[in-house]
Amino acid sequence: MEEFEEFEYQPKSVKEIFIEMKNIVELMVDLAYTAILFGDKEIAEEVLDLEERMDLLNYHLMTHAVLAARNPKEAEQITSVLQMANSIEDISNAAGDLAKMVLEGVALHPVITEAIMESEEVITKILVFPDSILVGKTLGELDLATNTGVWVIAVKRGKRWIFAPDKEFKIKPNDVLIGRGTHTSVEHLKEIARGIIRVIGDERT
Amino acid sequence: MEEFEEFEYQPKSVKEIFIEMKNIVELMVDLAYTAILFGDKEIAEEVLDLEERMDLLNYHLMTHAVLAARNPKEAEQITSVLQMANSIEDISNAAGDLAKMVLEGVALHPVITEAIMESEEVITKILVFPDSILVGKTLGELDLATNTGVWVIAVKRGKRWIFAPDKEFKIKPNDVLIGRGTHTSVEHLKEIARGIIRVIGDERT
Repeated sequence: MEEFEEFEYQPKSVKEIFIEMKNIVELMVDLAYTAILFGDKEIAEEVLDLEERMDLLNYHLMTHAVLAARNPKEAEQITSVLQMANSIEDISNAAGDLAKMVLEGVALHPVITEAIMESEEVITKILVFPDSILVGKTLGELDLATNTGVWVIAVKRGKRWIFAPDKEFKIKPNDVLIGRGTHTSVEHLKEIARGIIRVIGDERT
Repeated sequence: MEEFEEFEYQPKSVKEIFIEMKNIVELMVDLAYTAILFGDKEIAEEVLDLEERMDLLNYHLMTHAVLAARNPKEAEQITSVLQMANSIEDISNAAGDLAKMVLEGVALHPVITEAIMESEEVITKILVFPDSILVGKTLGELDLATNTGVWVIAVKRGKRWIFAPDKEFKIKPNDVLIGRGTHTSVEHLKEIARGIIRVIGDERT
């Protein structure tokens, strides 16, 4: 049977493509702010790479869409998906423009970083100390977004960036997490990362 | 002295305007998805109102900016603020476009709501039961974003919507919170809201 599998290969569904677009655009906006905050061209480049990926996804979505509509009602519904995808791509382009400011080496006004640091959701670097309880655990086990309110959007390991680390990603000593959350929650995670606080979350199961 | 107060009125600083723009655009995107998810025209209208507010803020920012630059270096820095503000306004416009889909009564494809419900960050309605420990507490006291990982972006009280409730907002029985967070965190908050879980956060101070 195996040789037939490639014929049975299903490209991603409209839904899968759409979920990926939504997740990517949120990551792009976070990373664009991060690139600006730290003046980091590598993060800015990643935003532009994601913008290209977004174009590709939107293209796939359109090819799926034109195949899917079989009557006027379906055509209207499918059009709503394309409309929404266009808005998502507009946001993606805006994030790309932000990233380009970093790549073009524009002199940034201090209020920009101040505003990013003083919004309701802030972005911060969190250094993981060797004796922190985070070390050796995967992001899946830790579920920091639920247990501390902090989203880990990227990790710097040595000179290497890992963007949007997945559930299997295991934290090592001296990793630098880029976290997004409230002031209180990122400060709390910093204390966990420094080894000062030695529990995560509450006793909920 | 009181009659002189109006002359002493200071318009918001560039930084304050900028922070407000950044907070509003995040709220707009959340509310646009919420409007789509629940097919709620009132939320969609709020997004368009915020879009107008955003235009006004961007206008104020520009008037401040043209006054602020005193030399080429400052001009470049100030231009960076305007560039970033334009990207934020692009995102705001995209959120507005999403809201218009709801107001125009476009027939939405089911994958749209499925995608919103299955992204990394989801949006959910959370009904507060009368015997929940949330009742009678302010959002400031509860700090749900830190303690449960859920952002309360709006509350429905009876027939009335309260958008972006502030720290002083006190939760009443039967309030419906619109929360954004991970699947796990919104499910956890639902159990708190139902009165099943009777603690919030861990023992951190």
